Amino acid sequence: MTTAEKIKKLQESMKHAGVDGYLIPSSDPHMSEYLPTHYEARSWFSGFNGSAGTLAVTADKAALWTDGRYFIQAENQIKGSGIILMRMKEPGVPTVEEWLSAELPSDGVMGMDGMITSMENISLFEKAFQQKRITLKDVDLVTPIWEGRPALPATDAWILDQKYAGKTPSEKLTLVRSALQKEAADAMLVSRLDDNAWLLNLRASDIEFNPFAMSFCMILPKDAFLFIDENRLPESARNYLTGEGVTIRPYTEIIPAIQSIRETVTMLYEASGTSYTLCEAMKSNPKITAKKGTDPIQLLKGVKNETELSSMKNAHIKDGVAMVRFAIELEEKMANHIPVSEVDVDEMMRRHRLEQENCLGESFGTIAAYGANAAMMHYHPTKENHSILEEKGFLLVDCGGQYLDGTTDITRTYALGEPTEEEKDYYTLVLRSHIRMARTVFKAGLPGKNLDIAAREPFWERGLDYRCGTGHGVGFVGGVHEGPQSLNDRNTTPFEEGMTITDEPGIYEEGKIGIRIENELVCKKAFETEYGKFLCFEPITYCPIDTKAVDASKLSWEEVQWLNDYHEMVLQTLTPYLNEKELSWLAKACAPVVK
Amino acid sequence: MTTAEKIKKLQESMKHAGVDGYLIPSSDPHMSEYLPTHYEARSWFSGFNGSAGTLAVTADKAALWTDGRYFIQAENQIKGSGIILMRMKEPGVPTVEEWLSAELPSDGVMGMDGMITSMENISLFEKAFQQKRITLKDVDLVTPIWEGRPALPATDAWILDQKYAGKTPSEKLTLVRSALQKEAADAMLVSRLDDNAWLLNLRASDIEFNPFAMSFCMILPKDAFLFIDENRLPESARNYLTGEGVTIRPYTEIIPAIQSIRETVTMLYEASGTSYTLCEAMKSNPKITAKKGTDPIQLLKGVKNETELSSMKNAHIKDGVAMVRFAIELEEKMANHIPVSEVDVDEMMRRHRLEQENCLGESFGTIAAYGANAAMMHYHPTKENHSILEEKGFLLVDCGGQYLDGTTDITRTYALGEPTEEEKDYYTLVLRSHIRMARTVFKAGLPGKNLDIAAREPFWERGLDYRCGTGHGVGFVGGVHEGPQSLNDRNTTPFEEGMTITDEPGIYEEGKIGIRIENELVCKKAFETEYGKFLCFEPITYCPIDTKAVDASKLSWEEVQWLNDYHEMVLQTLTPYLNEKELSWLAKACAPVVK
Repeated sequence: MTTAEKIKKLQESMKHAGVDGYLIPSSDPHMSEYLPTHYEARSWFSGFNGSAGTLAVTADKAALWTDGRYFIQAENQIKGSGIILMRMKEPGVPTVEEWLSAELPSDGVMGMDGMITSMENISLFEKAFQQKRITLKDVDLVTPIWEGRPALPATDAWILDQKYAGKTPSEKLTLVRSALQKEAADAMLVSRLDDNAWLLNLRASDIEFNPFAMSFCMILPKDAFLFIDENRLPESARNYLTGEGVTIRPYTEIIPAIQSIRETVTMLYEASGTSYTLCEAMKSNPKITAKKGTDPIQLLKGVKNETELSSMKNAHIKDGVAMVRFAIELEEKMANHIPVSEVDVDEMMRRHRLEQENCLGESFGTIAAYGANAAMMHYHPTKENHSILEEKGFLLVDCGGQYLDGTTDITRTYALGEPTEEEKDYYTLVLRSHIRMARTVFKAGLPGKNLDIAAREPFWERGLDYRCGTGHGVGFVGGVHEGPQSLNDRNTTPFEEGMTITDEPGIYEEGKIGIRIENELVCKKAFETEYGKFLCFEPITYCPIDTKAVDASKLSWEEVQWLNDYHEMVLQTLTPYLNEKELSWLAKACAPVVK
Repeated sequence: MTTAEKIKKLQESMKHAGVDGYLIPSSDPHMSEYLPTHYEARSWFSGFNGSAGTLAVTADKAALWTDGRYFIQAENQIKGSGIILMRMKEPGVPTVEEWLSAELPSDGVMGMDGMITSMENISLFEKAFQQKRITLKDVDLVTPIWEGRPALPATDAWILDQKYAGKTPSEKLTLVRSALQKEAADAMLVSRLDDNAWLLNLRASDIEFNPFAMSFCMILPKDAFLFIDENRLPESARNYLTGEGVTIRPYTEIIPAIQSIRETVTMLYEASGTSYTLCEAMKSNPKITAKKGTDPIQLLKGVKNETELSSMKNAHIKDGVAMVRFAIELEEKMANHIPVSEVDVDEMMRRHRLEQENCLGESFGTIAAYGANAAMMHYHPTKENHSILEEKGFLLVDCGGQYLDGTTDITRTYALGEPTEEEKDYYTLVLRSHIRMARTVFKAGLPGKNLDIAAREPFWERGLDYRCGTGHGVGFVGGVHEGPQSLNDRNTTPFEEGMTITDEPGIYEEGKIGIRIENELVCKKAFETEYGKFLCFEPITYCPIDTKAVDASKLSWEEVQWLNDYHEMVLQTLTPYLNEKELSWLAKACAPVVK
C-alpha cells in the first residue's frame, strides 16, 4: 500500500467508527521517544520515520507535525503522499490541537488509542475542543489496517550489576518513596521504561538501541510490583528482584491490578508519562486518589551517583578509543584512495565500537553524513541511499555506544580535504559555540532555558541559528535522550552536580553543509562564594576535535586555551589504551592550536 | 512608638479581631510598587522603607521579606526591632506563605486588608493554608493603630498632550477591546495606575516620582468608565475624556459600579494586578463572568509607539545634558577642594535636571552613594546620614527625570581619584557585562529569562553576581519600573521592537564598594534571515561612561569598539545643546579608549 492508500483506508475506518478525526502519536504505552517496531504506526502510515512526529487525519486531510531536526527529512519522505507537513514552532504553523479544532466539525468526535496517548495530550485536546464541543473516543483503528504489524517485543531481560549501577532497587525504592512523601503521595504508577530500568536495575533490548524492557511498575507504601512478561526474566533476575522486595506480575495485568488495589493510596502520575487508559483505570478505583505531579524518578536518575559517574567515564574512554581507531582507518582509506561510502563509515564505526569491552551495541543509528547530507540533523545512510566521500567538504559522524558501564553520544565533523574559507568560518563558529557552553560557569539553580543562550550568541549575532536545543541529558545504560535536564529555551529543571548533558551546537544549511561538534559534559561544582554556589561543566568525552578547519584567529585566547587543554586531557586519558601507531596519530591530532 | 511597640499593638488588635496572623503587604488598591504615603503601612510598622517588602505578624513573631536589593538596608533599618529578616530567594529562606503556614495554628485565621491584597497572593495563601485548614479574614487592622496616617492623595490631574502620547484614549480603548477579544473577554477591570495613565493619557502626582492619578477604569463592550475624585480634573480634561467616550464617576463608586452592571459581560482581571475585594465584587454580580487572564494593557503600553519613542529620545538628550553639567560641576568642585556631600550631589543633580525644558521632576529619589554606601543598591542619602566625597573611590549616581516627553533612568559611577587595581578590575567587569547585554543579538520571541545570562556570565565565571535583575522596563511619563518586559531569570514576556529596557549590571560588595553602569536601551530589529527575525538593542541614554577606571586590556576588541562607538554617538547627539566649555569637557570624556 502507498501512504496515500493507507491514509484512505484509515479514513474509511474512521467513517465506520464514527470519528471525524484520528490521532496517531509517536508513542507506546510507556510514552517512549524511541519505539518498539510494534508501535511505529506513525512511521508506517506516513512514511516519515524520524524519531518525533504526530500524524492527524480528518475525513479529507492528513497532516504531520515534526520539529526542526526533521523538516528536510520529513519533506522528502512524505513527498507525493498528500500529507501536509507542519513545521512545529515556525511562525503561523498551528499546533496539532489548534489544527484539529479548526478542521473538525462542531460536536465532532476525535478518535485515538488511549493506551498510547498521554494524559498531557488529552488535556490539550480537551481544552482546545471545548468551544466546538468535540469529544474524544478511545478506539484503536491502527491494528485492523496494519498488515504484518510486528509483534510486541519480548527480548531477554537482565539485571545490571551493582558495581555499575551503584544502588540497589530497594535503596532506590526508599529514595522514591521519600520523594513521593514531599509530593504528598504514597504510591506511584511508573510507566516510563527508563524509570523502570533505573529503579529496578532492569535491562533488555525491546527497543532498538534502547536497553529497556516493556514493563510497568506500581509502587505502593510497602509493596512494589513489576509488570512484565515473566518468561523473559531468568530465574536469577527473578530471585534478585524478589529479594529486593519486588513482586513480579504479568505485563498484561497492569490494568486489573490498578483496579483491584484495596488499600487507600494517593497515587502520583506524571501527565506526560502516563497514558489516558491507565489514568482512567486509576480514577475508576475509589481507593486511589490519582494525583498529577512531577515524576520524582526522572530527577533521581538524572543525577548520576558516584559509581555511575566513574563507570560512565570508563565507557567514554572506550568510546574515545573506538573513535580514534575509526578516524585512523578513515584517514588511511582516504589517503589510499579506497572508496568509502557513508554506509562504510557506519560499518567501520560500529565495528570499532563493538570491539570494545562490554559493549552491548550502539545507542542509536550512526549519523554518517557527508557534505549536504549533514544538513539533515538526523540523517542515516542506507544501502539504497548514500553518498561516497570525496577529498573535500565535511563528514559528520554522530554516534554512540551502549556499554555495561554507560551510554555514550558523540559527534565529530571531519574536514576531508583542504577546507575552504567558508567551511573554516562555519566550523570555527560551531566550535566557538561548543566551547562557550563547555566553559560556562553559572549560578546553581539555573535550568537549561536560562543557559541555552550561552552557546547560541555567536550564531545569533550573524543571523544564524540551529533549530533544536543545544543539548540533552543521556541515560546510564539507558536511552540516549533522557531528562529531566536539557539545554533548550524551555527546560525548567535546574542543573545539579552529577547531571550529564550533551553540548552539540551545529550549523545546518539545507542542500549545502552540516557541522556539529558534540561532547558529553558532567555538571559539577565550580566554587561557592558569598554570592552562592556556582556550577560548571567538565567534558567526559575523550576524543580529539578535528582542528583542520579551525580558524584560530576567530577564537578568543580563552577559547584557544580551552581547546588545547581539552586536547591535552584527551591525550593523557587515552594514552594507556592505544598502541604506538595510534598514539602517534593522537599526539598529532591533539597538538596545540596557535592563535 | 518604636517598631517593637507598633508590632505589639498590632498583635493586641489581632487578638481582639480573632486572627492568628496578619499580613501587611507593600501595596495599595492598585497593586502599585511605589505607594502613596497613605499606604506605606509596611514601612510605618517595620521601619524598613525600601520599595519592596512584606511584613507578616503572628501572635509572637514578626518577619519581613525583601529582595537582594535591600538586604543590607533592611538589616540596618529593622535592627533591634525583633523583626526577623527573610532574605528572599536565599537558600533555606521560606516564602511568606510557607512561613505563615508553618507558624499559624491548624484551623487558624490569617487577616489581611483585601483591598490592598492581590488575588495572586490570596491564591498562594489559600493553597499553602489548605493542609492546616487556615482561613483568611478581610479586615483592616492598620487604620485604627496608625496615628497620623497621611490622607489619600488628590493632586491635580491633567491630560498628556497627543503630540507626546501619539494615540488618543479612544484609539487605545479600541486596541484593548480587540486584545480582550483574543482572550475571549469583552470587559476589563483596570486597577493598575500605570494602565490607566497610558489608556486615558491621564496623569497626576499622587505618588512621589510617579505621575499617576488614583483611579480605576472599567471597560465595557461599548462604554468606558473612569473612577476618580472628579474635583481633581480640570474642566478641559473632563471634556477631553468625555469626548473620547469615557464616563467619569467618583473614585469610591468602583465597588457599587461593579455590583450594579446590568449587561452580561466576561470581565478580564489580572490576578497580580487586582485586589481580592474587587474580585469578590465581580464574583458577587451574576451578570459578570470574572475571567482571570493576562492584562493586555501591560503589553500594549510596553511597546512604545513611534511618537513615544521619538519623544523619549528627546527626553534622554535633555537628561544627558543635565548629567554632563552635573559631572562638570562636580569635577570643578572637587578640583577646587570644595566639600561635596552625597546630599549636595543629590541637590546638584536635581537642579540640573529641573533646568531642562518640560521637566516635571525626578523619576525616583536620586541614589547618590559614595564608597561603601554604593553597595546598597537603593541607598538614598539624608541630611542626617550621608558621606562626604573624597578624592578616591567611586561615586555612584543613579537618577532619572520625568519630562513631558518621557521618563528616564540612568546610572553612572565616577572614579573620584586615581582608581586602584581592584577598583579598575571591578569597574571593567561591570562595563563588560553592560556592553555584553547592549551588544546582544537574539532570536525574536525570547523573553528576559533567556537573555539575562548574557550580562551575567562575566560575573559568574569569577564567582560574583548581583542580587537583582539586569534591567527593567521604564514607563512613558510613567513609572520608572514598568513591565511587562524585564531582564531577569524569570520574566516570560518576549521582547518586541519598540520595548525599552534598562541595562544595569553592578557589583555590590557589602561595606566596601558599589559600581553600576546603566543605560536605557530600545529593542529593535537586527535582521531577518532564513532562520527567522533577530532583535537587538540600541542605547537611548546619551551620557559618557566614565573611562577613568576602564582597564581596556580586559575588554575584547568588540567591547572597545562598542564603547568608542557609543561615545562618538553621545558626542554627536549632545553637541547642539552644549556651550563651548561643556563641549570641550564632553569631547575629552568621549575620547576613544585604546586597547
